[in-house]
Amino acid sequence: MSGIRALARRLELSIGTVSRALNGRPDVNPATRDRVLNAAREMGYRPNQSGRALRHGRTSTVGLVMETGNPSTLGGDSFFMWLVDALQEELAVAGLDLVILPCHSADDPIAFLERQVARRAVDALIISATRRQDARIAYLAGSDTPFVALGRSETPGDYAWIDLDFETVARESVERLAALGHRRIAVAVPQGDANLAHLYLRGYRAAVAALGLPDDPALVLRTSASENGGVEVAQAILAMDPRPTAVMLGHEMMAIGLYSTLERAGLRPGADLSVVGFRQNPQLGFLSPSLACFRLDLGELGRALGRSVVDVLASPAGLKPGRLIWPMGFEPGPSMEPPPL
Amino acid sequence: MSGIRALARRLELSIGTVSRALNGRPDVNPATRDRVLNAAREMGYRPNQSGRALRHGRTSTVGLVMETGNPSTLGGDSFFMWLVDALQEELAVAGLDLVILPCHSADDPIAFLERQVARRAVDALIISATRRQDARIAYLAGSDTPFVALGRSETPGDYAWIDLDFETVARESVERLAALGHRRIAVAVPQGDANLAHLYLRGYRAAVAALGLPDDPALVLRTSASENGGVEVAQAILAMDPRPTAVMLGHEMMAIGLYSTLERAGLRPGADLSVVGFRQNPQLGFLSPSLACFRLDLGELGRALGRSVVDVLASPAGLKPGRLIWPMGFEPGPSMEPPPL
Repeated sequence: MSGIRALARRLELSIGTVSRALNGRPDVNPATRDRVLNAAREMGYRPNQSGRALRHGRTSTVGLVMETGNPSTLGGDSFFMWLVDALQEELAVAGLDLVILPCHSADDPIAFLERQVARRAVDALIISATRRQDARIAYLAGSDTPFVALGRSETPGDYAWIDLDFETVARESVERLAALGHRRIAVAVPQGDANLAHLYLRGYRAAVAALGLPDDPALVLRTSASENGGVEVAQAILAMDPRPTAVMLGHEMMAIGLYSTLERAGLRPGADLSVVGFRQNPQLGFLSPSLACFRLDLGELGRALGRSVVDVLASPAGLKPGRLIWPMGFEPGPSMEPPPL
Repeated sequence: MSGIRALARRLELSIGTVSRALNGRPDVNPATRDRVLNAAREMGYRPNQSGRALRHGRTSTVGLVMETGNPSTLGGDSFFMWLVDALQEELAVAGLDLVILPCHSADDPIAFLERQVARRAVDALIISATRRQDARIAYLAGSDTPFVALGRSETPGDYAWIDLDFETVARESVERLAALGHRRIAVAVPQGDANLAHLYLRGYRAAVAALGLPDDPALVLRTSASENGGVEVAQAILAMDPRPTAVMLGHEMMAIGLYSTLERAGLRPGADLSVVGFRQNPQLGFLSPSLACFRLDLGELGRALGRSVVDVLASPAGLKPGRLIWPMGFEPGPSMEPPPL
């Protein structure tokens, strides 16, 4: 529990109230404000963002656009829930509230954003699940609504973003598998035009070329970013001849469906097919053998995203927006073994 | 895809725009409105809620308060994501937008609600994860903000709610296990003061008493509503002497941790320990053997919740609010067997 939440708990106040008191907002009872400031002094709490001149609109609210109705959110992917906790806390430090704006994947994302902008219910927006060409970025870059993208895009524009290092993760996965002796390495990539799929595949292809491994189009499997995608990947691999000796997964939840399907076919990850997952995730802890994958601290990422939003609101227009490629460390596991002889 | 979404897709408009056109709202381009009304006529679409006199405030927005930072949302429980899709669609039919208001479990829930009410950013609220005694219900019942609770409570008040039939699910689980010959039946109940835990345990106790089964307090296991809760339940059962021959799980995600822990101990669900889960869920489809559990159509539930909100906004004050206990049908599976001889 970091500073402001500990302070709120000790005072039995909401984070929002504590935040508004620390930021000198007028809608706080003076006695409460004094209690908060005294406790903050006692606990040595220094709100690093307070006192900044934010370009507050009328709402002091930030909207996180979350795509719903897709295989990932309908599966067990709790990515956003972890992110939201830390993001909300970081925004609260700057006196900002967070609301989640669900946008169904079947709806027109531009019409959705136009509506949010027209309603003026938020001072800034966070968009996610960026596409390789992303019309939302073009639209928002031309609007007067500040925004941050969780994810890059090839759409040009001066905008702030944070993205995971998909390219390095894929390159490192190939290199580590090749070091164990694997040559035919399959790669599972989310279907559709998500930019992350493009980046992951680019990292895979660069490493395959650099190491002189077979560059067989049949090894590239397009599937849904979910548990069911992993089922499809396992079925495709079982039907291949020659079969790849390893597979790397471009979405974390694929491992669950892959393990289950291999098990039903009497095969064991590691001994029969090496597997490298994407993001380490508490739910993958129930898989046996443990999955080799990559670590990501979603609390840190959520806080960085919150700081980025605050920076965008605080910056004079025209300042260079912040951009950050987030590294992920490799976590070994017995799902990787040398190929069968 | 139901009516309004099909209509929006055909017209390449957002659901929100279609909804506003159907509801005669002024913020729609007249040409767009005519296109929508013509297409609706052609497709035979009848918006059942349109034209109702809703007690619209200024926002036409409904806020779903979602508790974050708890074991359930941080695990792989996608309950809310399924619910949100259908809820959003049903609200759109009545010209209402949905926003999700994340409230961290460490924050004061009353302070959070007071703030939402003071900001007047939503016309109505939906609260969930109701407690046996729930101060939020007492607060909202005394406010002028219409609300619907997803979940009952013993806190008195004239309010609308929808709740799952936890009591019948638990009673039926005991009865079906007893019919197979089980007598020592353990029950895993979410810890804390969630009302659903109280209802589930009440159903268990009523059936145990009616059937004359052993009423041993050691058989009641309090744990977290998550995968990790299932790990704890399995560990507790493995340490018991005499061991129960069956366990029923008061939260759906517990099955994942339970299966994993039994497997590591060399035990198989069904043959070695019968298991009845709570809600059927796509993620449980990866468990082997298949889990006996209860079916719930979250799309139907989400739409019913949306209609309940619309009713609350449409009703003249003083009308009896809607209340609904949602039945769940049993789904058999090989995780239930007669006890070992």
